[in-house]
Amino acid sequence: MKLNIHITLKNGVLDPQGRAIKQSLNELGFHEAEEVRQGKYLEIELDELDPNKAIIKANDMCEKLLANTVIENYHVEIDE
Amino acid sequence: MKLNIHITLKNGVLDPQGRAIKQSLNELGFHEAEEVRQGKYLEIELDELDPNKAIIKANDMCEKLLANTVIENYHVEIDE
Repeated sequence: MKLNIHITLKNGVLDPQGRAIKQSLNELGFHEAEEVRQGKYLEIELDELDPNKAIIKANDMCEKLLANTVIENYHVEIDE
Repeated sequence: MKLNIHITLKNGVLDPQGRAIKQSLNELGFHEAEEVRQGKYLEIELDELDPNKAIIKANDMCEKLLANTVIENYHVEIDE
């Protein structure tokens, strides 16, 4: 079963990489770019057929390794 | 208008970061993790009200700055 995981910075947490991307876009002439926030995106192939168990497992992976839950949110979904 | 952009490695392109994450998961006891591919996820706030124009603009940003189209695919969508 394939799962998609989004890991994003919590609101209020500074995102210097996103800021750098925004500035580069503006310098390239994309003046309509007002804000950029950068996150991570993971595609995980799990050896688990039950969707509910797979999601619980992936949430556990986020808590223990993939996300820094002090400053990041994560969201797990089944790949359709 | 807010857009979400996913940038992922093309099939066949090696992903050492994804491999390292997979190994760490396995070492932590998550033996069901069979493959991990890491991508980038960007949330962009654009000063553009027309959804079609916003998507065209964001595709242009991907071509010119955000993605390395030799090895990466990108996908732009409107944030609902």
